Amino acid sequence: MTKNKLWQASDGDALDPVVEKYTVGDDQTLDQLLLGHDITATKAHAHMLEKIGILNADEYEQLAAKLDELYALWQDGSFVVTSEYEDGHTAIETYLTAELGDIGKKVHTGRSRNDQALVMMRLYVKDNMQTIQEATKQLIYAYEKKTKEVGDQPMPGYTHTQKAMPASVAMWLGSYHDAFNDALPYLKDTTNYLDQNPLGSAAGFGVGLPLDRDMTTKELGFKSVQENPMYCGLSRGVFELAAVQALSLLMVYAGKFADDMLRFTSQEYDFFSLPRTMTTGSSIMPHKRNYDVFEIMRANAHEFGLHAGKLQAIAGGVGSGYHRDLQLTKGITIKALETAKSTIEVLTLCINNLSLKKEKLDAAMTEELETVAAINKLVEQGVPFRDAYQQVKKSLS
Amino acid sequence: MTKNKLWQASDGDALDPVVEKYTVGDDQTLDQLLLGHDITATKAHAHMLEKIGILNADEYEQLAAKLDELYALWQDGSFVVTSEYEDGHTAIETYLTAELGDIGKKVHTGRSRNDQALVMMRLYVKDNMQTIQEATKQLIYAYEKKTKEVGDQPMPGYTHTQKAMPASVAMWLGSYHDAFNDALPYLKDTTNYLDQNPLGSAAGFGVGLPLDRDMTTKELGFKSVQENPMYCGLSRGVFELAAVQALSLLMVYAGKFADDMLRFTSQEYDFFSLPRTMTTGSSIMPHKRNYDVFEIMRANAHEFGLHAGKLQAIAGGVGSGYHRDLQLTKGITIKALETAKSTIEVLTLCINNLSLKKEKLDAAMTEELETVAAINKLVEQGVPFRDAYQQVKKSLS
Amino acid sequence: MTKNKLWQASDGDALDPVVEKYTVGDDQTLDQLLLGHDITATKAHAHMLEKIGILNADEYEQLAAKLDELYALWQDGSFVVTSEYEDGHTAIETYLTAELGDIGKKVHTGRSRNDQALVMMRLYVKDNMQTIQEATKQLIYAYEKKTKEVGDQPMPGYTHTQKAMPASVAMWLGSYHDAFNDALPYLKDTTNYLDQNPLGSAAGFGVGLPLDRDMTTKELGFKSVQENPMYCGLSRGVFELAAVQALSLLMVYAGKFADDMLRFTSQEYDFFSLPRTMTTGSSIMPHKRNYDVFEIMRANAHEFGLHAGKLQAIAGGVGSGYHRDLQLTKGITIKALETAKSTIEVLTLCINNLSLKKEKLDAAMTEELETVAAINKLVEQGVPFRDAYQQVKKSLS
Amino acid sequence: MTKNKLWQASDGDALDPVVEKYTVGDDQTLDQLLLGHDITATKAHAHMLEKIGILNADEYEQLAAKLDELYALWQDGSFVVTSEYEDGHTAIETYLTAELGDIGKKVHTGRSRNDQALVMMRLYVKDNMQTIQEATKQLIYAYEKKTKEVGDQPMPGYTHTQKAMPASVAMWLGSYHDAFNDALPYLKDTTNYLDQNPLGSAAGFGVGLPLDRDMTTKELGFKSVQENPMYCGLSRGVFELAAVQALSLLMVYAGKFADDMLRFTSQEYDFFSLPRTMTTGSSIMPHKRNYDVFEIMRANAHEFGLHAGKLQAIAGGVGSGYHRDLQLTKGITIKALETAKSTIEVLTLCINNLSLKKEKLDAAMTEELETVAAINKLVEQGVPFRDAYQQVKKSLS
Repeated sequence: MTKNKLWQASDGDALDPVVEKYTVGDDQTLDQLLLGHDITATKAHAHMLEKIGILNADEYEQLAAKLDELYALWQDGSFVVTSEYEDGHTAIETYLTAELGDIGKKVHTGRSRNDQALVMMRLYVKDNMQTIQEATKQLIYAYEKKTKEVGDQPMPGYTHTQKAMPASVAMWLGSYHDAFNDALPYLKDTTNYLDQNPLGSAAGFGVGLPLDRDMTTKELGFKSVQENPMYCGLSRGVFELAAVQALSLLMVYAGKFADDMLRFTSQEYDFFSLPRTMTTGSSIMPHKRNYDVFEIMRANAHEFGLHAGKLQAIAGGVGSGYHRDLQLTKGITIKALETAKSTIEVLTLCINNLSLKKEKLDAAMTEELETVAAINKLVEQGVPFRDAYQQVKKSLS
Repeated sequence: MTKNKLWQASDGDALDPVVEKYTVGDDQTLDQLLLGHDITATKAHAHMLEKIGILNADEYEQLAAKLDELYALWQDGSFVVTSEYEDGHTAIETYLTAELGDIGKKVHTGRSRNDQALVMMRLYVKDNMQTIQEATKQLIYAYEKKTKEVGDQPMPGYTHTQKAMPASVAMWLGSYHDAFNDALPYLKDTTNYLDQNPLGSAAGFGVGLPLDRDMTTKELGFKSVQENPMYCGLSRGVFELAAVQALSLLMVYAGKFADDMLRFTSQEYDFFSLPRTMTTGSSIMPHKRNYDVFEIMRANAHEFGLHAGKLQAIAGGVGSGYHRDLQLTKGITIKALETAKSTIEVLTLCINNLSLKKEKLDAAMTEELETVAAINKLVEQGVPFRDAYQQVKKSLS
Repeated sequence: MTKNKLWQASDGDALDPVVEKYTVGDDQTLDQLLLGHDITATKAHAHMLEKIGILNADEYEQLAAKLDELYALWQDGSFVVTSEYEDGHTAIETYLTAELGDIGKKVHTGRSRNDQALVMMRLYVKDNMQTIQEATKQLIYAYEKKTKEVGDQPMPGYTHTQKAMPASVAMWLGSYHDAFNDALPYLKDTTNYLDQNPLGSAAGFGVGLPLDRDMTTKELGFKSVQENPMYCGLSRGVFELAAVQALSLLMVYAGKFADDMLRFTSQEYDFFSLPRTMTTGSSIMPHKRNYDVFEIMRANAHEFGLHAGKLQAIAGGVGSGYHRDLQLTKGITIKALETAKSTIEVLTLCINNLSLKKEKLDAAMTEELETVAAINKLVEQGVPFRDAYQQVKKSLS
Repeated sequence: MTKNKLWQASDGDALDPVVEKYTVGDDQTLDQLLLGHDITATKAHAHMLEKIGILNADEYEQLAAKLDELYALWQDGSFVVTSEYEDGHTAIETYLTAELGDIGKKVHTGRSRNDQALVMMRLYVKDNMQTIQEATKQLIYAYEKKTKEVGDQPMPGYTHTQKAMPASVAMWLGSYHDAFNDALPYLKDTTNYLDQNPLGSAAGFGVGLPLDRDMTTKELGFKSVQENPMYCGLSRGVFELAAVQALSLLMVYAGKFADDMLRFTSQEYDFFSLPRTMTTGSSIMPHKRNYDVFEIMRANAHEFGLHAGKLQAIAGGVGSGYHRDLQLTKGITIKALETAKSTIEVLTLCINNLSLKKEKLDAAMTEELETVAAINKLVEQGVPFRDAYQQVKKSLS
């Protein structure tokens, strides 16, 4: 149970431990991951408090030094948001107060845990969207390189899981190249969408102090101030939704590619392979070689399809103003971003290591793939298309 | 049961009626709505077939005239995609063949129902995304106008559904203004994302005829050709997903505003009202005045949160190449776009007609809203924030 | 626009047509489907009103006759809930009042459209759950019959879409038999769960008249009275959820079987076939034979996976007491039940018509399926399992 | 990276660490929670191997002793499924082999990690469903007790968030009592549904050894053998779905009650309260008293609404036979069960501690709640209901 609660009167009753465990949930674990961004934003906030005269220069210097120290402790894993603290925000203030006394008690002036959580999440999401953007560029490049490498190797085109018309490996890989390439701008647009600074909105209604929001905006590298304080809170769960939705476009294509690969690497097709180091075996059947990397990818894509739905159920389930419901959007968002990041990286590795089985591909180019060509020949001789179609159809039966 | 199937041998067995009913589903109804776009794209396709010499000038003229005629019949409701046709595409080819004989039989040269459906849906989605963009601009303007109109009327700010700090009606309305305004670029970006011409991809693997895809692209007003034919099919369900996701940002905010309104129009708050002509009554309680327009809006938002999930379940449930699973993405997409369009329009109407109950709002500005101001006063006197907080807290108990 | 609203003062302002269209949505279409149950419950209600003296015997006789007449008109499609009526409930009262004057005006005594909608939906869901239960029994029987019919035909067992161990067609079909058979009790349990009569709960708080709820319960064939009137309303959307969830078990297995069939009927496997009358063709490729009945089945299963989520988003999005949000649960429920019903019927037809391609099945029984048997031989000779595994593994490389 | 993989040849290449990290995911953490059930089932399996002569009595005794030892180590937290092991199953076999040499290598005879995971999950789900059933009985009892305690305290009934008709606190609490009480049989039925033993199905196709499945069934306390080995695998993700769906009925009502409470504890209603030890405060506003226990409950209910959807997306996304996609159903199921369990426990605590504010409740019983009573009076005087309604309506304006 937490010892320190920022809001508790020193002589107040302790929070019921069952209620506490239920409401805190996995928040401490999640905040551990996010703490770096919280520390960074706290430092910018303190710097601004100095500028507007709430802190003097010496106080700020001491806070800045302690925050740098804390960041280093967090980075090497020696500062942990244990269950002793209600959340990461509390851990930081408690640490500063323990180390610096009254100076630590000043750091929360002009802010609330609401805007503290908001700015931390915006920094986290922005950071990860940029990382994923770079990873996606690598993936697109991998498809491009492999597409060139495979030359004009033919491959059957399928519709309804049935052989349809001639296609090529390059056409197939190229279709995913284009799919990821077209989705790329969404990542950038979404980063723009959420690149606004909510710090200074306090509990969602501003605070009657002359905060310099432009200063923290510049210091934290945001594009602009998110002016309306109620909008800052209103957008909680929704800017995360925008990010998750942009990533959905990547995930749905990754899942479809994985599904293709699982079919095309079965013994019945056997068109492609990955190196033995990228497949796994069975605990009971020694001959097995499983492409389970694509199964996990497909399952991640299927699960991903509902992350945005969960965010909408939670964020859309409440009106304006902060509701603690929104705490649950953190875990969903983090899971979504981490999954997308690792999926794109793994898929790039797979594309780079993909091998063709040319003989099997060639052997699959059977004659039923040529019926449209036969129709076209008749069409060029002047037979109306639908008559040509019926003529070829008759010849097949 | 349908009489005409494009793919059936004249002497072929009839499709089992139970299977037919199940597979066709509500496709005929949906295609009725989409038929205009199908006719438009068919005309562009025919024009292109003339250019590349599959049709002569006279044949194209006859087809163009008949397609214009059909468009007019559709527009006034006298041409209906009945259960006699497997789908809208079949209805068009059947009509042209009945009217023009061999000329009608030529119209399907170089295309498949796959790219026919794709181009029709892209036109439909693009069209509607532009309409919704305009509607959203009207909504933003309505919020802006109302925000100015309400002046500096105070209103309590709530967190956790409890009174928190002073806010204002303008701040509250302004938060939604900003939310919709920030979402607006998504509508435009999404229109760009999907503004590509799939016509000419045929069954997803191109077709061995020298189709002039630039010509149909220009004629249909698309920004570019969607080059890779497998990508055309691969993106089925996904470009629709992009549209639905962009609209999610609007819907989640509309739902949250609706929830606010339902609370703020209850007798216990009674801050706002709509004209009597926009509220409804009860079949049993004569005194009731219900804001059910906001209830339907909220429910639409809640349901909307899973349209994108459904598209991902279906489109993400299959690999590349056409699968008839994708037919089911049509109904979901149409429902989503129609709901978003009407919701934005109705919300605009509500904002324009919103009245304030100033006395009730003023009376709600009770003293507990001022505790942060009291802390700030102490902070300005040099008391560390956390000590000031505890001091004010003690004074309240 | 509707002419008649039960709640409108004769001299009242008309409801804004934009608001009306938005709030009514597709309610009139849905109520058309449900009207029979509404009429049935109205008759039982009137009978009870006679018993408690609100109506005299003659009044009831006239109402009963008119309701029977209306039922017949509805059944042959000549009574339609047009947009003239706000909903089906209004259509009925309007009809009775037009035909019987003051007697018609008495029928709504002691009820509200709330309990009227509730009882109608409970009757509809119960009715359909029983139908689906019978259909599922047929399906189970079809699997049983086919399982016997196929004898001991071997078939490869697959894990990770790779050949694993020997299995049989009977084992494969039998697994679905058992799956549906185990799910069957859920349908019955769910019918029990929702077999309660909400009529008499009025707007959710009862009504101060001595209604005889036991009488309507008996007359409508419900198992018991749903006593607490607030519970009647509270369960709106949730009893439907229970039904949809029970059906999910059927749909997920139907979708999995469809996915199996699409793989096993591809040219690369070619283990099974359906008659030509149950497959479809392509508008462009005359050789195609598509098993799209299974694609629609799989897509229906995928979409089905979110019907319950939608019901929870809507019903779970509001507290107790009626909110018009709940109106939207009707369409979702009806769609789910109709889909499940047709899916089970179509799947039964498919199983009954399934043919085996014995040569292809036999040819697929390749030697890698026998590695576990090889290990077992060693194990029986006393070699520890893990050593035997490694020994066989080594022999394969 | 894991050192030990059951399937790897001693001289085999190591699995690519990026692929390994991606495919393993959080499996080790989840297996830590489930390990007890895995050990229990392993012991029953070994006992059966002794009975059929694969192990001799001494070998079994040694294995049993080591498994008991391992269970104790796991229970006190000193045995951890670290990243050194691919999963919990591997951890157990590795432990036994390290401790007992050849005897440990024999334990996997006649089973696969597939049936090992299946039996472990069935035991886990069954166990938790029973726990939740008991917890739900406590909750029902708490509602019952509180309902009696509040007597006939009146409370307004609301529809459309507007005052409607007179209700009572007992009616309101009683509606939730009935809701949970009706849902209770689902928990039992579901426990029956999944109470089958999959152990012995091996990789999903049985294994050619004379396993005594009745013996392990009896030893593990299952009701019956799950006979068809392909059904064992086919039901993976679906028996979990059945459990999660049954719990949905509880969660949707818990969420609705939470939403009620958040409205009824706002200053504007102020009908109820919880003790100070069950509410929380604000880091910035010293006067706040937040009922965030209900906000987390509501958000948990909203998120819960999609757990079943996720299971269907994953389990429904693959055909028969094991696919590693199914690994991802573990985390979703565990999260759902743990959430339901804690929610029911916390809600029980809240009901037990609920206080009424009688004055506020009494003051809320305003006259508009009496319009239906006024109509009924006229009805009893013989005025047709609809005329009486219009008469009362006119008197109000």
